[in-house]
Amino acid sequence: MASDRFTESAAADGTRLTDAEFRTWFAERREAHAFQVEEIPFARLDGWAFAPHRGLRHDSGRFFTVEGLQVRTDVPGTGSWMQPVINQPEIGVLGILVKEFDGVLHCLMQAKMEPGNVNQVQLSPTVQATRSNYLGVHRGRPVPYLNYFNEPGRGRVLVDSLQSEQGSWFFRKRNRNMVVEALDDVPEHPDFRWLSLGQVRRLLLADNVVNMNARTVLSCIPFGPPPASAGDDPWRDGLRRSLGPEGETGALLSRAEVLSRITAVKALRDVEQRLVPLEAVEGWHITDREIAHDEGRFFRIIAAAVNAGSREVASWTQPLLAPVGRGEAMLPVRRIGGVLHMLLQARTEAGTADVVELAPPVQYNPGNYRELPPNIRQLQAVDPSRTRYDALLSEEGGRFHRAVSRYRIVELPEEQPPAVPADHLWLTPGQVRDLLPYGRLVNIQARTLLACLHATW
Amino acid sequence: MASDRFTESAAADGTRLTDAEFRTWFAERREAHAFQVEEIPFARLDGWAFAPHRGLRHDSGRFFTVEGLQVRTDVPGTGSWMQPVINQPEIGVLGILVKEFDGVLHCLMQAKMEPGNVNQVQLSPTVQATRSNYLGVHRGRPVPYLNYFNEPGRGRVLVDSLQSEQGSWFFRKRNRNMVVEALDDVPEHPDFRWLSLGQVRRLLLADNVVNMNARTVLSCIPFGPPPASAGDDPWRDGLRRSLGPEGETGALLSRAEVLSRITAVKALRDVEQRLVPLEAVEGWHITDREIAHDEGRFFRIIAAAVNAGSREVASWTQPLLAPVGRGEAMLPVRRIGGVLHMLLQARTEAGTADVVELAPPVQYNPGNYRELPPNIRQLQAVDPSRTRYDALLSEEGGRFHRAVSRYRIVELPEEQPPAVPADHLWLTPGQVRDLLPYGRLVNIQARTLLACLHATW
Repeated sequence: MASDRFTESAAADGTRLTDAEFRTWFAERREAHAFQVEEIPFARLDGWAFAPHRGLRHDSGRFFTVEGLQVRTDVPGTGSWMQPVINQPEIGVLGILVKEFDGVLHCLMQAKMEPGNVNQVQLSPTVQATRSNYLGVHRGRPVPYLNYFNEPGRGRVLVDSLQSEQGSWFFRKRNRNMVVEALDDVPEHPDFRWLSLGQVRRLLLADNVVNMNARTVLSCIPFGPPPASAGDDPWRDGLRRSLGPEGETGALLSRAEVLSRITAVKALRDVEQRLVPLEAVEGWHITDREIAHDEGRFFRIIAAAVNAGSREVASWTQPLLAPVGRGEAMLPVRRIGGVLHMLLQARTEAGTADVVELAPPVQYNPGNYRELPPNIRQLQAVDPSRTRYDALLSEEGGRFHRAVSRYRIVELPEEQPPAVPADHLWLTPGQVRDLLPYGRLVNIQARTLLACLHATW
Repeated sequence: MASDRFTESAAADGTRLTDAEFRTWFAERREAHAFQVEEIPFARLDGWAFAPHRGLRHDSGRFFTVEGLQVRTDVPGTGSWMQPVINQPEIGVLGILVKEFDGVLHCLMQAKMEPGNVNQVQLSPTVQATRSNYLGVHRGRPVPYLNYFNEPGRGRVLVDSLQSEQGSWFFRKRNRNMVVEALDDVPEHPDFRWLSLGQVRRLLLADNVVNMNARTVLSCIPFGPPPASAGDDPWRDGLRRSLGPEGETGALLSRAEVLSRITAVKALRDVEQRLVPLEAVEGWHITDREIAHDEGRFFRIIAAAVNAGSREVASWTQPLLAPVGRGEAMLPVRRIGGVLHMLLQARTEAGTADVVELAPPVQYNPGNYRELPPNIRQLQAVDPSRTRYDALLSEEGGRFHRAVSRYRIVELPEEQPPAVPADHLWLTPGQVRDLLPYGRLVNIQARTLLACLHATW
């Protein structure tokens, strides 16, 4: 079973590289890939221009466009609004290549620089390629190891599903998340190292190391229960039980009930999304250097010039989305009958492809608000001693400029279940894991938090 | 387990009504609901009009619109085209109410007239309500039994998923398919009767009795294996094994492989669908009585005046889509290691919501072709003695005028597997059943054929 092999690797140290050796290599890669990002006027973008009614786009028609989006919903307190949005309809590949060494699966992870990263280089999947990338539209260097992911039969496919990305910033974007096992010898390039899943998941405890693309692929790995701890560890025990058979039999809602609840929200909620010309977006303005909200909230679209050595092409310019302030995502979890459950909300975001996806119930950007809504203030007031995970993690550095979010997992007491609205569901991590292969049911923030949950044992 | 109770009902005779009594009642309902449908000029439509750039629509903005659709794909032999399409973004409810009598689940089925039906009255689910219906937009009579489906907690929800309808005629349409168990006393109105699932599934053997909405809800019922037959019946045995644990363990492809294959097609196939003004649809023309293809192929959009007694409102006018000729849908099945498999194709249709859904490999309308493609002629040449199911069934009579398709299930010999392209998959009926709760993975024709498969034992 692939699941058992993943779980064993998550409990194992790497046999190819010690953690200390990893740190040395990673620091060295950070040195090697120093680069500069400079905000420039839109006029200095190379190959990108504003096309009337069609937004900010590349001459080739590929990569992505920045367009306007009009959203109308009947969600109370949300209503209707307009905003710029990144439209990237092509599906890319985010892939981790794995291979067994000394009986343990190892992941080929990449030290990759992305222009938007606060710290330049982060740990990335083996491959992150847009369709433009792998069709060679920008005529750069070939993407290493891509053949394992786009040549059928080149390796053994262990994970393969289409997952969404930030619904507030992307219009219906999704990528193909893959884990492929290599059955032949694989050359190790300087920017790549083999790490056990145990090593990778512990790196999730550090700020801004494991990038968003790595996290989403990791979240799709069907981990089983971690080994029991020697001593008494109710937290680990709750997680262990929630990832085993009790994750279904001991769950508050059956799988059929979960799907029915999601179906009901999709059927009854009214959501209309329409791409509109960028110049028609009310409440926003376009200058020669930015597309920005009139009150300075939400985010800015800027242009950047990048000078770097390690990417497919050595220097380039591109638009980036720069959020205002740091994001916050908090996942409340709770043991119910000893089995861990996570509280997720069926949430509609501007660019959600199909009405709702399951999201953390606290997911917001303080920069979006003049004053925080009461439900967020209430959940912020949770006892800090109940925090089980707390780290700063970066969102996709290829599209977002210094987009960092604080991700937290907080355990609520079993005995006082909070009152939650009908679109909030308590699911076991095992149930969430089992929804993922179907795609587009769990949003990127919730998937990141699922991956982080595995870092806590 | 709900599954066991459904399967038991499928093996049982009804305890409320004999088959003979059903026939008498149904004939009587046909008499009672005689009605007239007359083709009229568009100008005589009441409340419907052509709006420039916005198609043929109702003044209220509800129900549905007829618009233009431009489709571009990279599917070989398909390419790009334009056509009219029915756009009905609101999600309706198709619901069967079930209740236990004498230990057997019975379905409350309705004798319902629909204007497009060739034979006026067909057997329908308990409830088929558009959102407009249940919000009372056309101020008609209330829909009986609707409260079981739109009041949470009114009954026990056993089936609940969103499923697509005809992708060639609808733009991304879907309905909520539900089975709800009543736990209280339910009054039986004259147009409604309680039938066991055994009675209902046998009625699928007759031409034009069980309507499309009933078939789609039936297809979502998670039937387990039928009881073993007394004698030697390899057909029934193959079906039985395919619906039990062997439906997964004895399947040609694992569940992960099936989802990965669908993911791959979605990721790699390029499909662009854009609603366009009706007047911009090339190759079609609009007269005062029809929207039609210049060569008379595909379908016509017509206007109809309906005079009837049993619907929510007594007489009305509406547009209907009238296909040219009779549809054909053929499902090849094959025992592999004694376990029945069905051959499905990941198919892109004009209005498919998410690139592809699984469809019968033969699904076409002879009226669409000047000359039939070779692959269809080849599959038509199958030995007729291998036919396991063959009946004429009607598509949705509320939208389509005399749309009848011939549905066939044909068993191919185990020993000579046909060569099939990469977007064709052999799945067990159990695997298809288990995909259904996630919605929008299996198209309406394939779901109808799955329901028909249960009629064959």
